Amino acid sequence: MSASESKTELRLGLAGLGTVGSGVVKMIQDTQDLLQERTGSVISVVAATARDKKKDRGFSMDGMTWHESAVDVATDPNVNVFVELIGGSDGPALDSVRAALMNGKHVVTANKALIALHGSEFAQLADDHNVALNYEASVAGGIPIIKSLREGLVINQVKRIFGILNGTCNYILSVMEETGRAFDDVLKDAQDLGYAEADPSFDIGGIDAAHKLAILTSLAYGCEVDFDSIYIEGIETISAHDIAMAKELGYRIKLLGIAEKSDAGISQRVHPCFVKLDRPIANVSDVTNAVVVDTDYLGRLVLEGPGAGQFPTASAVIADIADIARGVTQPVFMKPARDLKPGAAIAMDQHVGEYYIRLTARDKPGVMAEITQDLADEGVSIETIIQRGAEGVENVPIILVTHKCQESVMNRALQRIAAHDAIVRPPRMIRIEDV
Amino acid sequence: MSASESKTELRLGLAGLGTVGSGVVKMIQDTQDLLQERTGSVISVVAATARDKKKDRGFSMDGMTWHESAVDVATDPNVNVFVELIGGSDGPALDSVRAALMNGKHVVTANKALIALHGSEFAQLADDHNVALNYEASVAGGIPIIKSLREGLVINQVKRIFGILNGTCNYILSVMEETGRAFDDVLKDAQDLGYAEADPSFDIGGIDAAHKLAILTSLAYGCEVDFDSIYIEGIETISAHDIAMAKELGYRIKLLGIAEKSDAGISQRVHPCFVKLDRPIANVSDVTNAVVVDTDYLGRLVLEGPGAGQFPTASAVIADIADIARGVTQPVFMKPARDLKPGAAIAMDQHVGEYYIRLTARDKPGVMAEITQDLADEGVSIETIIQRGAEGVENVPIILVTHKCQESVMNRALQRIAAHDAIVRPPRMIRIEDV
Repeated sequence: MSASESKTELRLGLAGLGTVGSGVVKMIQDTQDLLQERTGSVISVVAATARDKKKDRGFSMDGMTWHESAVDVATDPNVNVFVELIGGSDGPALDSVRAALMNGKHVVTANKALIALHGSEFAQLADDHNVALNYEASVAGGIPIIKSLREGLVINQVKRIFGILNGTCNYILSVMEETGRAFDDVLKDAQDLGYAEADPSFDIGGIDAAHKLAILTSLAYGCEVDFDSIYIEGIETISAHDIAMAKELGYRIKLLGIAEKSDAGISQRVHPCFVKLDRPIANVSDVTNAVVVDTDYLGRLVLEGPGAGQFPTASAVIADIADIARGVTQPVFMKPARDLKPGAAIAMDQHVGEYYIRLTARDKPGVMAEITQDLADEGVSIETIIQRGAEGVENVPIILVTHKCQESVMNRALQRIAAHDAIVRPPRMIRIEDV
Repeated sequence: MSASESKTELRLGLAGLGTVGSGVVKMIQDTQDLLQERTGSVISVVAATARDKKKDRGFSMDGMTWHESAVDVATDPNVNVFVELIGGSDGPALDSVRAALMNGKHVVTANKALIALHGSEFAQLADDHNVALNYEASVAGGIPIIKSLREGLVINQVKRIFGILNGTCNYILSVMEETGRAFDDVLKDAQDLGYAEADPSFDIGGIDAAHKLAILTSLAYGCEVDFDSIYIEGIETISAHDIAMAKELGYRIKLLGIAEKSDAGISQRVHPCFVKLDRPIANVSDVTNAVVVDTDYLGRLVLEGPGAGQFPTASAVIADIADIARGVTQPVFMKPARDLKPGAAIAMDQHVGEYYIRLTARDKPGVMAEITQDLADEGVSIETIIQRGAEGVENVPIILVTHKCQESVMNRALQRIAAHDAIVRPPRMIRIEDV
C-alpha cells in the first residue's frame, strides 16, 4: 500500500467477532461519515472470520468476504489492514498476525498476551515490511497510553511506569473494602456480573496485568518484550482483614504493575501493594484502570479511564486504524526493532521497600520476643506493631510494618519467624509501595 | 517541504527564547541522539529571535541565524518548521504565525491566547497551505490532551469536557484550604514563588483557563474557536470562609473550565465550582492540571499532569515537532477548516444547576423569613440552610444550598434578597457542579 493509497481507502480484514470485534464493526458502520471526515479516508470491513458464521451479531455482513480462517483473512489480497481480535498468545492469533506482517499488511490488535510474548518478533517483521503494528487496545482498554508514550512523551526518559492494569482485580479489591466481604465471595459476584471470567486465574493471578506491563516496559525503555522476567503475584490471598488493616494504617491495597529503571537494570513486577490513601492511584476504584508515568522532563502524567468493555476497547482499535489512515507508520516500540536491547532484568529479591506482614500466632508469652528478635537478627527494623488479643481466642493476628529493607533479607526473616511453633500459618507479606 | 524531505530534516525557526523557548532548545540539544532515533529525523534549530540577543541562556547558539523579528524567522527560507513561543494574542506572535502558514511552513506553538482568538483563521490557512499547526503545549502544559482528543478519541463524540486548566488558581485554592489563609495573602506568596505573575489578572480572573477552554471546545465539537462566548468568573472573591463551608458540606472549590453540548447548543464557562470531595478532579491539588473528557463510546477519560513549567511545556512542544517529523499533517480542529461550524453558544442565564449562596445579614428577627420567602416566590427550593449566630456579633453569615434551578431564576431571587436592608453585602453565589 503506498502512502497516497493509504490516504484514500482502508480495507480492513477482521479476525474475531466477539465482544470487541462486533463493537469495532458496529462503530465503523455507525460512524461512517464522521470517520471519513476525521481521517480523510474511506474505511470499511471487507473480510472477516469468526467461530460461527451464522450467529446474529446485530450488524450487516454485506460487503464482507467470509473466510474460514484468520490466516485467510490476513492474506486476502483485498485486505490492506488486518485487525486481530481473536485473543490468545498462540494458534490462529499468532499465525494470522505473523502472516499479515509477512504479507506487508498493517496490523491492529487488542491482544496483550500476543504482544507480550511475541512483540519483539513482530516489531522486526513490521520494520522489515515497513508496516504499522498498532496495539493501543491491548493495554488499559480505551486509555490512550500507548499513543501517549510513543508520541506524547516522545523525548522523555521514563523513570518509572506503573498502574492499575486489571479491572477485575480492582473491582474485587474495591468491593472487598466497601463491604468487608471475603475474596471468594466477591469473586463469585464479579463472575455473575461478567466482570470476571468463568476461569478467573489470568485476572486474579496477575497474568493479565503482567502481559500489559511487559508491553509498557518495552515501550518505556526501548527493550525487547520480556514477559518471563516479570515477578507476578495475584490477589487471591488478600483477606478482608488485610484490607481493613491497610485502611487503619492509612493505605489501600491495589494490584499494581510496576516497571522501573535503575543503574542495575529494569525491574518488572505485578503484585498487591499498600499505597497511601492520598495518592491518585489509591482513589481509582472499581473496573477503572489508571497508568502513571514518571519521566525526566515532563514529570508525572496520570491517565485514567475504562480498562475494558466493548466500546471503550473498540474506540482504541479504531484510533489505531485512524493512525494508519493518516499514514503513520512508526517503530513498534519507539525505536527500530534491531536496536531493541534485552531487558536486563533485576531479580525480585533485590527489591528494596517497606513491608506489611500479617502473622497468626498462638496467644502465649514470648511470641513477640521471638519475632522481634528474628527481625533484629536479620537487620529488619520495625515501624509499627499491632497486636490485639481477644478474650478466649487461641490465635491472634500480629501486624508488622517494617522500614525499608531488601526483599532477600525480609524473606530470610520471615522464614525464621515461620519456623516458630507459635506461628500457626505461613506469614503473609504485602509490599508497601511509595507511589 | 515534501513528505520524504520531512522524514529526514526539520529545520526549526524559534521565536521567543524565554522559559519555554530556552527549554525547547536545551532539550533538542541534550537529546539529539534520542530524538533522531525516535523520530527518524534530524531536528535542529537553524534560526531564532528574542528580545535580547546577548543574554546568556545557558546553551550554544552556534548554527542558528539570528533575526531581528519573528516574521523574519517565520519567512527564513532555511526554516521549514516555525516554533512560536513569544506569547500574546497579537503583535509579533500573530504576525509571525500568519506569515509562516502563508509561506507554507509548519507551525508549532504553545500560545493559547493566540489559538483561542485566531484559531479558526489559522486552521483555514493551514489547510490552504497543507501544513500542520500543532499546539499541544497551549492547553494543560505537558498533558497530551490535544493528541488524545484529535487522535486517541478520534471517533468519539464528546458529551462534556472539563478541567482544572490553570495551575496558579489551583495552587491558591489548595493553599487556602490547607492553611485557612485569605486569598490576597496566598496570592502574594504564589507571586513570590513564581507561580503567579506580577500582574496575575489573566490567571486569577479566569482568562487563561478560558483561552484553553476555547481550544478544547473547538476540538471537541468541531466548531470555530469562540472565546467571546465563554462565561468567565475568576477566584478573586472566594473567601477562606467559602472554602471551609465547602469542606463542611462535602465539597472542594475548584476553578473549572467546562464545555458541554446539548440540543440547544454549546455552553462554555469558566468559574469556581463546588465539586464533591470523592470525585477525581477534587483531589488534583497545587499546580497540577487535569482534564476530564466524557464521550459516547469511550466513557470517561481523565488526564492529569503538570500544566506549566519549562520542561513539561517544552516536552509538549517537542512532541508536536516529532509529529511533523513523522509526516503527520492533520486538520487543526479535527475536520477541514471550511467545515467548522459556528459555536451556537448557550447563554449563562440558561444554565441549570445547584447553587451555594453566602449572605451576610444583620442578626435581627425576620431576616430568614424574608430570604426564604424571596426564594419561594421565585420557585427556588432550598436543600440546606446554615446560620450560626455568635454572641455580640452584629453581622452573621447565612449559607444556603439550593436544589437545581435555572440561573436566570437564581439571579432574580438574589436580586430580591440583596435589596433587603438586613443584607449588608452583595450575596456571593458559587455553582455546584456535578462532575
